[in-house]
Amino acid sequence: MIVLFTDFGLEGPYVGQIKAVLHREAPGAPVIDLFHDAPAHEPELAAYLLAAYVGEFPEGAVFLCVVDPGVGSEERRPAVVRAEGRWYVGPDNGLFAIVARRARAPSWWDITARPGRLSATFHGRDLFAPVAARLARGEQPPGERRDEASRPGSDRPGSDWPDDLPRIIYFDRFGNAMTGLRAAALTRGQTLEVNGRPLARARTFSDAPPGQPFWYENSSGLAAIAVNRGRADEALGLHLGDPVIVRDG
Amino acid sequence: MIVLFTDFGLEGPYVGQIKAVLHREAPGAPVIDLFHDAPAHEPELAAYLLAAYVGEFPEGAVFLCVVDPGVGSEERRPAVVRAEGRWYVGPDNGLFAIVARRARAPSWWDITARPGRLSATFHGRDLFAPVAARLARGEQPPGERRDEASRPGSDRPGSDWPDDLPRIIYFDRFGNAMTGLRAAALTRGQTLEVNGRPLARARTFSDAPPGQPFWYENSSGLAAIAVNRGRADEALGLHLGDPVIVRDG
Amino acid sequence: MIVLFTDFGLEGPYVGQIKAVLHREAPGAPVIDLFHDAPAHEPELAAYLLAAYVGEFPEGAVFLCVVDPGVGSEERRPAVVRAEGRWYVGPDNGLFAIVARRARAPSWWDITARPGRLSATFHGRDLFAPVAARLARGEQPPGERRDEASRPGSDRPGSDWPDDLPRIIYFDRFGNAMTGLRAAALTRGQTLEVNGRPLARARTFSDAPPGQPFWYENSSGLAAIAVNRGRADEALGLHLGDPVIVRDG
Repeated sequence: MIVLFTDFGLEGPYVGQIKAVLHREAPGAPVIDLFHDAPAHEPELAAYLLAAYVGEFPEGAVFLCVVDPGVGSEERRPAVVRAEGRWYVGPDNGLFAIVARRARAPSWWDITARPGRLSATFHGRDLFAPVAARLARGEQPPGERRDEASRPGSDRPGSDWPDDLPRIIYFDRFGNAMTGLRAAALTRGQTLEVNGRPLARARTFSDAPPGQPFWYENSSGLAAIAVNRGRADEALGLHLGDPVIVRDG
Repeated sequence: MIVLFTDFGLEGPYVGQIKAVLHREAPGAPVIDLFHDAPAHEPELAAYLLAAYVGEFPEGAVFLCVVDPGVGSEERRPAVVRAEGRWYVGPDNGLFAIVARRARAPSWWDITARPGRLSATFHGRDLFAPVAARLARGEQPPGERRDEASRPGSDRPGSDWPDDLPRIIYFDRFGNAMTGLRAAALTRGQTLEVNGRPLARARTFSDAPPGQPFWYENSSGLAAIAVNRGRADEALGLHLGDPVIVRDG
Repeated sequence: MIVLFTDFGLEGPYVGQIKAVLHREAPGAPVIDLFHDAPAHEPELAAYLLAAYVGEFPEGAVFLCVVDPGVGSEERRPAVVRAEGRWYVGPDNGLFAIVARRARAPSWWDITARPGRLSATFHGRDLFAPVAARLARGEQPPGERRDEASRPGSDRPGSDWPDDLPRIIYFDRFGNAMTGLRAAALTRGQTLEVNGRPLARARTFSDAPPGQPFWYENSSGLAAIAVNRGRADEALGLHLGDPVIVRDG
C-alpha cells in the first residue's frame, strides 16, 4: 500500500501524474490519498501532522510525502526512512523528523542516485514516486544508509524541534483546528488557550453547547479546537501556525 | 462496490482513513467517491440529495453515508437500510429516510454492537466503514432488524419530512443549484421561483440566453437552477437551504 | 488506462458517476484523475493545458475529456481522436485541436450513435464514458472516420488557434500561473511580461529571491509564472485568460 501525503491539492495535475508513475512502476499496488492539503511549504507543521496519522496504517505501508519548498536546491536532500515497519520517502527537510523520533530504532537512507528525467520543480513525480514504487514492490531503498545521522545532536533538519508543537497545524473542512500537541501528552489539569481565549475540554461535539469553542482529542490523538455546529477557524480568528498556549490549571 | 457519500471533503485525512479501513476489511472491492461535499451537518438536505443519486448504481452496491452532526451522542443510533437491493450504512438521523420512503419494502437494522476502537468523533472510520466492508463481502448486517420502525407514524428521524423538499440542497462547482424537488414531480404548468425571481424551464444550458437564470431537469432528475455561462449561486444570491417556491402557472 | 480531464470538480457527483460507468463497462481498467479543475467552459484554454500533459502517459491511454459549455446543443458534435497512439474522447469544440496539431497523422471519428439514455446536460456520463470504456477494452471507436476534417483549412473548431497561446491557462493550488506557451518555443533572448511587469527566467523556485516573480519551465514543459514562497496569482493580480506578452530581448 502506498499512502500519499502532499500539499499538491487533489484537483490539479500533480497527484494524477504521480499516480501514473506509481501505476507504471508498481502496478496493482493500492494507493490511498491521505492528505493533499498538508500545510503548504511548511515542513515543520506537516511533520507533526504526518506523525499523528501514520499509526493506523499497516506494517509495510509506504508513505510518499511531499511538502517541499526547497525542491531543486542542492541543500535539500532526498531521503528514505523506515520506522515501526513503515517506509517514508520524500525530502529530508524535517518532514520525517517527528515520525523518526517517536519510533524505536528508525533507519535512514540518503537517496543519492538521480533518475534520467529529473525536472527542477517536481521531484514528487520524477524522484520520490519511483522510489516509493520500488519499496512497494518489496525491494530495498536505493542510496546510502546513514542511521547515525538520526542520533541526538545530528544535523538532520528538524532534530531540534520539540516533541509536541504548540501551534495550529491544520484546518479541516469543518473549520476544526488541529494542534501539534498530542492529547495524551497533556495532563488532566492543563488547559489550552488560543488568541487569549481559554478552552474547556469536551469529549465530542454534541457535548459542548452550540457556538462554544472547546478542545477535544481528535480521532487520531491530536488536541484539536472546535465549535459545536460552528467553525473554529472563523469564530476564533485562527490561522495556520498560530501559537497555542498550554496552561497548568 | 462501495459508494461514499459524506461531508468530509476529499483532501483532508478522513476519506483516506476510511478507504484504508475498507481496503483492509474488503480488499479488492471497488470504492467510488460520489459526494464528499454533501451538505455539512444537514441530514435533511443530504437525504434528498442521496435519494436522487442512488438509482444508477447496481444492485448490491453499498452506500457508506456520513453526514453526522450528532456523532458520539447517545440519541443518534447507527443503522443499516436495504432498499431496492442496495445497502446503506450510516447514522439514523434521517439521512436514509427519503431513500427508504421511495423504496418498496425497505428493511432496517439497528447496529448495536460497538467496535473495539471507537473514537468519539469519527464513527465513519471506526463503526460505519467496517460494517460497509462486511456488507461488501456479502455478509449480513450486524445488529437487530427492526422493519416496523420504518412504517408511517414511526419515530425514525425524517419520517415527517415531505416527499420532495422545496429548498436548495446542493451547489455544484459551476454554481448550479440543485433543489430537493424531482422534476418529474412538477406538473407542466408549474414554475419555480427563488428570491422573488420566477424561472422559466429550459432543456439544457445552451437553450437559455447567456446570463439568464432558468431551471432544468438535471442529469439525475432533480429540478436545478442555473445560468447559461454564469453562476446561479452568485447571480441569484442563493444559499444552501434557501426556500424554492412552486407556483401553479 | 483511462485518464480523466474535466472541469467537473472532484468532490461533487459528476466524477463519481463517470467512474461508476467506467467500472461497469471496463471493469479493472485503471482510472487516473489528471485534471478536474480544467478551465471551466473554456475549451481553448483547456486545449493547450491538455496538450502539455499527455506526453507522459503510455501508448493506448484513453483520455476522457470534458470541458463542454455547448453540451446538449446540435452544433457541438462528439468526437474521438487518435494521436501518437493515445485516444481522446469528448466534445469536438477545439479541446483536441492542439493535441491533434502536434501529432503526426492524427485520426478523427465523429460519434454519431446516441446511447439509449442521454441526458441533456451530462454527456460525460452518458455518451463519452461508454465510448472511453469501449476504447479501453481495445475495441475500435464507434462512428464515422473523417480524417480529412483535420487538414489545414478544415472547419473543425480550433483549427485557427495558434500553435502556442500567449495567455494564462491555469492556476495551480500554489498560485503558480501556467501559460499556453511551451518553454521550448521561446528563444533565449525572449522575456515574458504580464500586467506590465517583466519577468526574469529562473530554473526553480529556490533560485529566485523570496517574493520576486519569475518565469520558469514547469515540469510539463510550459512557461509558468511563480513567486518564490508567494502566490503569483495574488502578487501579480492575474486572472484566467489574461494575456502574456513575449518580448524579444
